[in-house]
Amino acid sequence: MFGGERAASEELLERFLDAAARGDLALVTSLLSNAPSLLNRAGTNGWTALMLAARNGHHGLVGALLQHGCDKSLLNQSSQSAFDVAKFWGHTHICRLLLRPDPSRDPDPSRDPDPSPDPDPSPDPDQLSRTQESQEEKRWIAPQQSPHETYFSAEPLDRLSAKRPDQSWVQSRLKDPQTVILLFHRLSPMMRDQDGDQEGESSAAQSKLCRFSHEEVKDLLERPGSVLLFLGVARRPPPSAAGGEPRAWFALGSDSEDEEELLKRSREKHSRFAKNAHRDLLRLSEEEAGVVAQARSVLAWHSRYSHCSTCGSVSRVEEAGHKRSCESQACISHKGVHNTCYPRVDPVVIMLVVHPDQGQVLLGRKKVFPSGMFSCLAGFIEPGECVEAAVRREVQEESGVLVGPVWYVCSQPWPMPSSLMIGCLTVAMTTEITVDQEEIEEAQWFTRQQVVDSLLSGPHAAFTVPPRQTIAHQLLRHWTGLSSNL
Amino acid sequence: MFGGERAASEELLERFLDAAARGDLALVTSLLSNAPSLLNRAGTNGWTALMLAARNGHHGLVGALLQHGCDKSLLNQSSQSAFDVAKFWGHTHICRLLLRPDPSRDPDPSRDPDPSPDPDPSPDPDQLSRTQESQEEKRWIAPQQSPHETYFSAEPLDRLSAKRPDQSWVQSRLKDPQTVILLFHRLSPMMRDQDGDQEGESSAAQSKLCRFSHEEVKDLLERPGSVLLFLGVARRPPPSAAGGEPRAWFALGSDSEDEEELLKRSREKHSRFAKNAHRDLLRLSEEEAGVVAQARSVLAWHSRYSHCSTCGSVSRVEEAGHKRSCESQACISHKGVHNTCYPRVDPVVIMLVVHPDQGQVLLGRKKVFPSGMFSCLAGFIEPGECVEAAVRREVQEESGVLVGPVWYVCSQPWPMPSSLMIGCLTVAMTTEITVDQEEIEEAQWFTRQQVVDSLLSGPHAAFTVPPRQTIAHQLLRHWTGLSSNL
Repeated sequence: MFGGERAASEELLERFLDAAARGDLALVTSLLSNAPSLLNRAGTNGWTALMLAARNGHHGLVGALLQHGCDKSLLNQSSQSAFDVAKFWGHTHICRLLLRPDPSRDPDPSRDPDPSPDPDPSPDPDQLSRTQESQEEKRWIAPQQSPHETYFSAEPLDRLSAKRPDQSWVQSRLKDPQTVILLFHRLSPMMRDQDGDQEGESSAAQSKLCRFSHEEVKDLLERPGSVLLFLGVARRPPPSAAGGEPRAWFALGSDSEDEEELLKRSREKHSRFAKNAHRDLLRLSEEEAGVVAQARSVLAWHSRYSHCSTCGSVSRVEEAGHKRSCESQACISHKGVHNTCYPRVDPVVIMLVVHPDQGQVLLGRKKVFPSGMFSCLAGFIEPGECVEAAVRREVQEESGVLVGPVWYVCSQPWPMPSSLMIGCLTVAMTTEITVDQEEIEEAQWFTRQQVVDSLLSGPHAAFTVPPRQTIAHQLLRHWTGLSSNL
Repeated sequence: MFGGERAASEELLERFLDAAARGDLALVTSLLSNAPSLLNRAGTNGWTALMLAARNGHHGLVGALLQHGCDKSLLNQSSQSAFDVAKFWGHTHICRLLLRPDPSRDPDPSRDPDPSPDPDPSPDPDQLSRTQESQEEKRWIAPQQSPHETYFSAEPLDRLSAKRPDQSWVQSRLKDPQTVILLFHRLSPMMRDQDGDQEGESSAAQSKLCRFSHEEVKDLLERPGSVLLFLGVARRPPPSAAGGEPRAWFALGSDSEDEEELLKRSREKHSRFAKNAHRDLLRLSEEEAGVVAQARSVLAWHSRYSHCSTCGSVSRVEEAGHKRSCESQACISHKGVHNTCYPRVDPVVIMLVVHPDQGQVLLGRKKVFPSGMFSCLAGFIEPGECVEAAVRREVQEESGVLVGPVWYVCSQPWPMPSSLMIGCLTVAMTTEITVDQEEIEEAQWFTRQQVVDSLLSGPHAAFTVPPRQTIAHQLLRHWTGLSSNL
């Protein structure tokens, strides 16, 4: 190629990118018909036409570029995709467009282009036939409405806590044939794996909870060691409900029962108990994961708090499984309200420590992690600490690094057994790492490129990060989306 | 006044305000010497010269205006003071200037005008002779370094959690004559009220903790019902320490002992136990409040968790007061790690609900509140809930109002007995209030002006809000500082 040709080619690229940035659909289309190779070419700092159109909110143009088959996985020099750019600038409708799996599909700008905030963003747990793309959409689009919703945090049920003490109401809902009862054995819910290709649906959920009616499990309710927990009612009535009464959900923990005996009750083939919680519970739909988060945490509390911690007497279950009261009337726990009677939630800080150069983050690995996996530092908040102080202390204890300001990013309930993960970003003031071998095995700084590679390549990357269902993963994604180059 | 005179006066004001906005100190001074009445006059939207200078970061000019005796308490039409404006725009050094109590003092711009972030923002608890202005400064300036530090959240001690299991180290620190021991009786620390006018200092703290040496209380350590808790070591060695070893701090809970017997041990006159925690514990310095937050929460846990919740046996204190282990070797609590052995922290959401018109906020009152007091809605986070879901549920349960997006603002440990308050702002999607009488007595919308009046007038306002030491107060202050008029 001669110098003059190169100059002409560069000039053409410049015109093309400029038209994309301005949203000039006619000019972009015309240039592409003459020079199709422009489609994926990048200008300054690695920005493609798609990224520029995404940044400036040109919805129609983004759709047209996708229809031309442009590569939406390209990254600019800050390792951001067009999606990251659109997300950063709050162009929800463009994010949605970029998440569609089939690029040749009509973008249909008329479809909910800029939804108003929804006062009830929780999905209906009965709507389980979501397609994969809408699952992906939810994961990425929901943050625009309510920032950074995380796995386990969906609230498809209205907990109706005021109804818990009303025994006759609870009993009547329990016996309703529409009611769903989930069966747990030693904190493991009964579930079944989804078939790979179900007719007409490609649900992102790989597993599904087994559901029982009162009739099917009522004999278990009376057995010793059984705990019944009212979880709430669906936020929308099921389509089939005649009276329109929303469906009630319960969890039944039946620990003393034989596992096989319980499995026999299932109508579904291949039912099993989710024995490896850290793996199996991450296979559910977002909605079912939200239901399990409540059920497993409260059942875990019952399994370890069957005695009054104040006097040692046995305690009894009250308020539809949400309270325990000491059987001894002489116990001082009956005077006033005290936390001994209510389920425990353990707040944890988990934080991504950003290097002062803004281009690296500190990750560590525990001995129990799978080989090659690194994650964010984390630890329990101690009594008398605020979130920010706990972040500073934990980072210093585990890595020797001192940190400055702390920003909250998002939170996640983690039912192993009952943590509340509070996810933060913080900036390091020092960079030398001194690992406390009691807490973690290794900690090191990783570059933005290394993190992006790991997020994109999954298990094939040089190092792995926890799966997308974890808040550590979300903090990393959040950080890679932040950049001064945007 | 004739029309021509008024026009001239308005023109003069315009020149004056324009000079202030540009930071033209010479012109401002010259105009003031000719027309001193300009000093506090306001232009468009109620902005005075001081506010304009504060907004644009003109430190020298703000100092000069204060020396001229200008009124820094004036509010613009968005109810913001010059301080609020400077805080919003991040002009830390101007905030500091505006907080000085004596307006005629030399502003001295050389004094730490723009401090770099401090990797260790925690103050030394031994430095208790702070002046009132520096207390105020800390409260307002600290947010610039580490956003929104709250009362009870100071961490003047390094907790050194890794040292807790090392009994011989703990014992040797306990016996060090430099060591400070705080004495508690039924969760109340022994303290004494400060004299109103102490020579040479005007500490903001109205009360001070009584400090004991090992020698003074060692007989109590062996008594039944005593709990000893290692709190940490001061982050800086005391000036008098020969070896430079930082001072260790302990708390000793001595519940079975007679209160009077304990008080007799104090070297200080008028020592007493802080019986009304909600009032007395708010009288301490920020540093001592931070120490008490840890001590009281952990002692409260010991007082209610003396038995193993899993099997009912008595449990024993371990790890310098930070762990309890079941005395029964057969108990399953000895297998693996479980939260039954560690102090409890109860996460709570507390949220300021902003009206869709942005100009009002929703406050409620409980029956137990003092007459006329309203506060933010709040409630415990339930198992399986993220912060955002808990905010939505609590607001709906208590007031019937549906809310949309949720933003974290700040957090606060609240040792009554062991809560972690997570402070949020959220926007209402509906405005009709339906109060749940079980939870609160009344809830209503208050305008920005009503809130500002209450914050400024304290107990003399039409309604009162909780004191500045509470996170509810800080959320209200935070909201009044937010405005599109800035």
